[in-house]
Amino acid sequence: MKKIINKPEDVVTEALIGMQEAYPDKLEYIEGFEVIARKKKEDKVAVISGGGAGHEPLHAGFVGKGMLDAAVSGNVFSSPSPDRIGAAIERMDSGKGVLLVIKNYSGDIMNFGLASDLAEADDRTVESVVVKDDVAVPDSTYSTGRRGIAGTVFVHKIAGAKAESGASLSEVKAAAEKAISNIRSMGMAMTPCILPAVGKPGFALGEDEIEIGMGIHGEPGVEKTKVKSAKEVAEILLEKILADYDYSGSEVAVLVNGLGGTPLMELYILNKEVQEYLKAKGIRVYKTLVGNYTTALDMTGCSLTLMKLDDELKELLDAECDTPALKW
Amino acid sequence: MKKIINKPEDVVTEALIGMQEAYPDKLEYIEGFEVIARKKKEDKVAVISGGGAGHEPLHAGFVGKGMLDAAVSGNVFSSPSPDRIGAAIERMDSGKGVLLVIKNYSGDIMNFGLASDLAEADDRTVESVVVKDDVAVPDSTYSTGRRGIAGTVFVHKIAGAKAESGASLSEVKAAAEKAISNIRSMGMAMTPCILPAVGKPGFALGEDEIEIGMGIHGEPGVEKTKVKSAKEVAEILLEKILADYDYSGSEVAVLVNGLGGTPLMELYILNKEVQEYLKAKGIRVYKTLVGNYTTALDMTGCSLTLMKLDDELKELLDAECDTPALKW
Repeated sequence: MKKIINKPEDVVTEALIGMQEAYPDKLEYIEGFEVIARKKKEDKVAVISGGGAGHEPLHAGFVGKGMLDAAVSGNVFSSPSPDRIGAAIERMDSGKGVLLVIKNYSGDIMNFGLASDLAEADDRTVESVVVKDDVAVPDSTYSTGRRGIAGTVFVHKIAGAKAESGASLSEVKAAAEKAISNIRSMGMAMTPCILPAVGKPGFALGEDEIEIGMGIHGEPGVEKTKVKSAKEVAEILLEKILADYDYSGSEVAVLVNGLGGTPLMELYILNKEVQEYLKAKGIRVYKTLVGNYTTALDMTGCSLTLMKLDDELKELLDAECDTPALKW
Repeated sequence: MKKIINKPEDVVTEALIGMQEAYPDKLEYIEGFEVIARKKKEDKVAVISGGGAGHEPLHAGFVGKGMLDAAVSGNVFSSPSPDRIGAAIERMDSGKGVLLVIKNYSGDIMNFGLASDLAEADDRTVESVVVKDDVAVPDSTYSTGRRGIAGTVFVHKIAGAKAESGASLSEVKAAAEKAISNIRSMGMAMTPCILPAVGKPGFALGEDEIEIGMGIHGEPGVEKTKVKSAKEVAEILLEKILADYDYSGSEVAVLVNGLGGTPLMELYILNKEVQEYLKAKGIRVYKTLVGNYTTALDMTGCSLTLMKLDDELKELLDAECDTPALKW
C-alpha cells in the first residue's frame, strides 16, 4: 500500500491534527473526540456536521466563518459515535440552538439522532436535516433512501450563511431544507480506493471499466461500462440528474467534484462539457465550483451536483465564507 | 487509460476553457495561444508565468489579483512556444514593464528568453527571474542546474503582491529574487503519472517502492527505496532541504504539496510530521499551505517547500490575493 501515513489506525487523528496545525489561528482540534471546531463560539445558531473520515476536505475543511461551526469525524468510512457529536454540540452551542447536517447513511442517522436526543435531554435545542442528493440508486449498501454525497457542501454553505446572518434555528433549518430539496448529484468511479486499515482495493474494476453511479464508499452504482469520454460522462450524469429534477429555465450552482485521485486538469475538462450541456438545455449557471471537495480517499472519478437557486439561495451562496476549503 | 478527457490532443485547450468557464467574471482565455489572463489589464508591472501543462493549478490557477496577470501553457510537460508567451506579454503589459517567472527547464529558459527578446525589440521592458528550488539533484533530465518545482507558487505570490502594490519593475524583480533565494523544495513520488497522449506510465516503480527526489515530470531523483512512513518522508525531505539552506532560528512559510493523485488526508498527516520536525529544529512556522498546488498529472507523492521570511516577505505573503487556487 502506497500512502503517506504512519500507522493505519492513526490516520484520522493525525490528519485532523495536521489540518488544525495548518490553520492554528482559526481552528481547534478537540482531542479524544475527533472534532474540528472554530476557535471562538459565536452568539448564533451553531451548524455542525460530520461523518466518516476519508472524504476530505469534507467535513472539517468547511469549518469556519459562514459555514460550519464544528465537524465531527468518525473512523474512515465509519460514522462518529454519539459522544463525539455530543462534544461538538456542547462546545459550540451558544444557547441559540444547533442544526445538525447529516448525510443519509444509516450509521450517521442513528448516531447523530442519539446525540441529538442526549443533547435535548440536557436542555439544548437541536434540529437536524438530512442530505440525500445522489440520484443514482433509490437505496444503497449503507442507506435507506438516497445517499448523501457532494451536494452536502452546498448545504453547509447555505445553512452556514443563514446562521451567520443571525437567523433563528427554524430559519436556518428552513434554508438548509430548501437547499436540500433543490440539490441533485450523481457520480462515477474509475478506480477503487484503498482503506488504510485494509491495504487493498475494496472492489475491482477492469482495466478499461468505470462504474456509473458508484457511491463515495465504493457502494454499487447503476452499471459498469467501458471508459467514456469527458463529454459522455457529463451527458450520462446530467441526464440522470435532469430526469429526476426539472432544472429547465432555472439558474443553478454547479459543483464538479473530484473523488480524491483525479487531478484538476481532468475536472476542468469535465467542467467544459458540463457548461456546454447545461447551456444547450437552457439552464443558466450562476456559480461553478471545480475541485476535490467530497472525496473517497484516493478513488479516481467525479461527481456532478446542481443546486437550483432563488434570490435567497443566491444571497446565501454569495455570502462571505472563510474556511480551509472554501473562501470568498 | 482511465482519464476524464476527450481526445488526448485536446486536453490542454479543453482544460483551460473549462477553467475559464468556472471564473467567467475574472479570467479570460486567449484562444490559439493557450493563455489565461486577468480580464482587466491593470496599470502596474505585469507578472507573467507559464510552462508545460499537467501541473494544475500551476500556472493558470494563480492568475488573479495579487498574483499573476497571465499564465501561458505549453502542451503537457512541454514548454510554451515564444509566440504564446508574446501574446500574454502584449495583452498584459500596461507600459510599466513585465516580469517573467520561469521555472528552470531548458525549454522554458529558451522560449521565455526568445519571447522576452522579441518583446524588447518591440520596445517593451521585460525582466525575468528563474526558479530553481529543488535541492534533490544538481542537474536533471530537462534542466541545467536545479529544477523549478512547487516553490514557484511562493514566487508568484511574492512577485504578484509587490507588483500589485505599485512597485517598479526593478523592485518587483528584486522581491521575486529575494523569495527565490530563500526558497528550497524537495519531493517524493510513489506512482508514475500517465501522459494523455502516451496512455501508459512513463516509468516504473515497484509495488512497494517510492522515489526520493523525483521531478515533476518523472525525472530521476536521488534513490528508489521502500515505502516510508509519513514521519520518515518528512525527515528525509526536510533534512536534505536544511542541509542545503540554513533555516535555523528563522521564520518560514511552508508548502506541503501533493502531486495530483494524493488525497488531502495524506497531505495533512504529512503536515503534522513537518510541523513537529520544524518545531524540534527551532524553526518557526508563520504560514502553512497544504494541498495540490504543483502537480504532475495523476502522480501520487508530495513535495515540501520552505521559504525564509523577513518583514517584507511576510507583508507580501499576507497581502490580499484572489485567484482560483489561492485566496485570502
